[in-house]
Amino acid sequence: MNATTQAAASNQKQDATISGGSSSGARAGSVGVALLGMGTVGAEVFRLLEENSNDFTHRIGGAVEIKGVAVSNMSKPRPGVPDELLTDDAHALINRDDVDVVVEVIGGIDYPRELVLAALKAGKSVVTANKALVAAHADELAAAADAADVDLYFEAAVAAAIPVVGMLRRSLAGDKIQRISGIVNGTTNFILDAMASTGASYDEALAEATRLGYAEADPTADVEGHDAASKAAIMASLGFHTRVKFEDVHCEGISAVTAKDIAAADQAGYVIKLLAICERLVAEDGSESVNARVHPTLVSKEHPLASVNESYNAIFVEAEAAGSLMFYGNGAGGNPTASAVLGDLVGAARNKVHGGRAPGENTYANLPLADFGEVTARYHIDMEVDDRAGMLAAVAQEFAKSGVSIRTVRQQDTGHTARLIVVTHSAQEKVLDATVHALSNVPGVKAVDSVIRLGA
Amino acid sequence: MNATTQAAASNQKQDATISGGSSSGARAGSVGVALLGMGTVGAEVFRLLEENSNDFTHRIGGAVEIKGVAVSNMSKPRPGVPDELLTDDAHALINRDDVDVVVEVIGGIDYPRELVLAALKAGKSVVTANKALVAAHADELAAAADAADVDLYFEAAVAAAIPVVGMLRRSLAGDKIQRISGIVNGTTNFILDAMASTGASYDEALAEATRLGYAEADPTADVEGHDAASKAAIMASLGFHTRVKFEDVHCEGISAVTAKDIAAADQAGYVIKLLAICERLVAEDGSESVNARVHPTLVSKEHPLASVNESYNAIFVEAEAAGSLMFYGNGAGGNPTASAVLGDLVGAARNKVHGGRAPGENTYANLPLADFGEVTARYHIDMEVDDRAGMLAAVAQEFAKSGVSIRTVRQQDTGHTARLIVVTHSAQEKVLDATVHALSNVPGVKAVDSVIRLGA
Repeated sequence: MNATTQAAASNQKQDATISGGSSSGARAGSVGVALLGMGTVGAEVFRLLEENSNDFTHRIGGAVEIKGVAVSNMSKPRPGVPDELLTDDAHALINRDDVDVVVEVIGGIDYPRELVLAALKAGKSVVTANKALVAAHADELAAAADAADVDLYFEAAVAAAIPVVGMLRRSLAGDKIQRISGIVNGTTNFILDAMASTGASYDEALAEATRLGYAEADPTADVEGHDAASKAAIMASLGFHTRVKFEDVHCEGISAVTAKDIAAADQAGYVIKLLAICERLVAEDGSESVNARVHPTLVSKEHPLASVNESYNAIFVEAEAAGSLMFYGNGAGGNPTASAVLGDLVGAARNKVHGGRAPGENTYANLPLADFGEVTARYHIDMEVDDRAGMLAAVAQEFAKSGVSIRTVRQQDTGHTARLIVVTHSAQEKVLDATVHALSNVPGVKAVDSVIRLGA
Repeated sequence: MNATTQAAASNQKQDATISGGSSSGARAGSVGVALLGMGTVGAEVFRLLEENSNDFTHRIGGAVEIKGVAVSNMSKPRPGVPDELLTDDAHALINRDDVDVVVEVIGGIDYPRELVLAALKAGKSVVTANKALVAAHADELAAAADAADVDLYFEAAVAAAIPVVGMLRRSLAGDKIQRISGIVNGTTNFILDAMASTGASYDEALAEATRLGYAEADPTADVEGHDAASKAAIMASLGFHTRVKFEDVHCEGISAVTAKDIAAADQAGYVIKLLAICERLVAEDGSESVNARVHPTLVSKEHPLASVNESYNAIFVEAEAAGSLMFYGNGAGGNPTASAVLGDLVGAARNKVHGGRAPGENTYANLPLADFGEVTARYHIDMEVDDRAGMLAAVAQEFAKSGVSIRTVRQQDTGHTARLIVVTHSAQEKVLDATVHALSNVPGVKAVDSVIRLGA
């Protein structure tokens, strides 16, 4: 205790000198914060800011003061939050002269968009945890931040405290990123992991996830891949310095993954993960394009992403000079999200005190989006066929016709019918699509049960 | 190509506006760089800067121009580097008016220290990859950077392109770090991994590492843990906001690790890794201290650090709000180090163009260093004893006397003698030391062959 007090005293002079140097708006080295939202994340942000205020003062070079907390329901009890800080007029709070940084942790899109834009236009830096907002409206938000010469931070929007945004924006700013693949949705990873470890069906695993609080009452955004697609859009935009929006991301969820798929994957040495994949494609003439997609993927059990279990997240980045990097941690939850929001808040507040601006949106590369049909992958195709001689030849013939090269075939007898499990070499989506369509018309092929892409 | 040109044109206006805004020394948005050193890393930095100059211009908001390259041997051929850039007068290069940022990739301590200090004093921001320099002289360097209000970046000093420094300085700036444990030396990880996978002795594995270029001709700095200790000092200083120097780090290398140790670890479900561990200790009265140490450590095969093989690095961070995070990648080599240096260069150059300063040294917490004897760990103790009844009782008695609680004991007959392998519960280093000393005086105990700490 004594040591801390002493340190605080001895640093006071230094802080004062620094903040005197190049202040840009914050009054006398103190930074006013408006907190919009008091859900799980907002409550943690509030608590940690109050509890560790001495640390924040030192790390920023000036005190952080919460000037107000905007909530929709004024009558709900907010333990630990003084009544005089609460308001239901978010706009008035944002526009207070003593507010320098606005922290948005409300969720949703339209209302937070309105508030974040208002804040940026009023010259306030913004920290948001809102992936859906950023993935849908990054252009508009970045332009507003640029126009007002303020910061827009959103580390918490991708995988909470795993510092994906900082890594893409800053650490790898001198490198060329080739590919980002990640498990960025904890709910779906929990469900797939539960299916793999217990043999449960999708519905059973989803029910368990809901019971344990890993899935929301309406799990659509998670299980259909929309949440992961927002994150893919953000990662692709930052990683490739080009604009990729939510609607540009090809998106397939996990609701069609069956226990049979998972068992087949396991037998072949794979686990099924819902991956967000962002890829730089280079055509034969050297021209580049980018693609972002979310779909269930067979990941080799040897790959680091395969051992990411339960609701954990991990992001695997391949860059020209850095090589392969992986980042792993808790990708959701009140505390990890608050950690990311507070890291951003320190950055935004430092810039208010010392001047300067964080690296913002930079879509200079302006790369075209590759059509999903042009993307190549390897495929694991599981089909039910008549149990008679010649079926393998007929199926192989169909692959040969479309120029899709087969890597392995396994045949399994299951009584009256047989299963053929084909793993292809690399092929384009559109070619594979056509092949699968043709396969289902081959006499003796009863059904193509599943087509799952390979590779992390 | 066309798209890029177009993007460049459309961004020109924006860049001009930004750099007009708050320029702080860089001339007309262009940033002059002095490159000190042209070894593996320097050559890669030079090549990538030239090759991707358009990207750097956009990411910085102004062009980067290498004004000169300081080398010690002017007659050595430097493919791709124009003669007129080469100089053997580093001081003159640093002091050129058109140099804004100095990149130091020379290695060693004394000479780079002199150059980095000269650069900072001359108002140039510095990017260095030099862990030994930073770990030994951080106070002096930070004070010089503060006095001149310029940046001192050193991401490459810890684990190359794995963004440990950025993560500790920025991403977790709003959190409270409890513990950092990492595999931060590729040479020793390669040797330990080779011993584990082939059963080789330490000397055999070291010879193989040397043959493959993973170990230097004089491997002392790596195998005795000095390199890891430098990184531990840097990580502890950043993570705990306090000063930890190289000489504060308790350091044990791997040269005493035997094939028998590795086999015993394997049998018990562990692998041996050389870990750098930085820990915040909280006493019963709530007072805090920190400790940093490097030593061979038994890591459970279930822990993510256990599967970090070959020369890879990984850092495991535990923070109050973020929980556990892991970062994994190539922790050395010309390209990954160049990636980190260039990421830092973008940051330093952006600040020269747009104003502002990166978060620097901040040792406000000023925590005392815990004596190594106060640190607690669990221990794996392998001893040779007479093969007769009562030995286990005698040994257990000795542990009981010192208050060290035993978790498991295994007895192995090896002919005339027996081995006793004891795993303890948590105990203090000084207590354990005394216990080991007492054990060796117990009649029938022939030798305490190895004492290895547990836990990642």
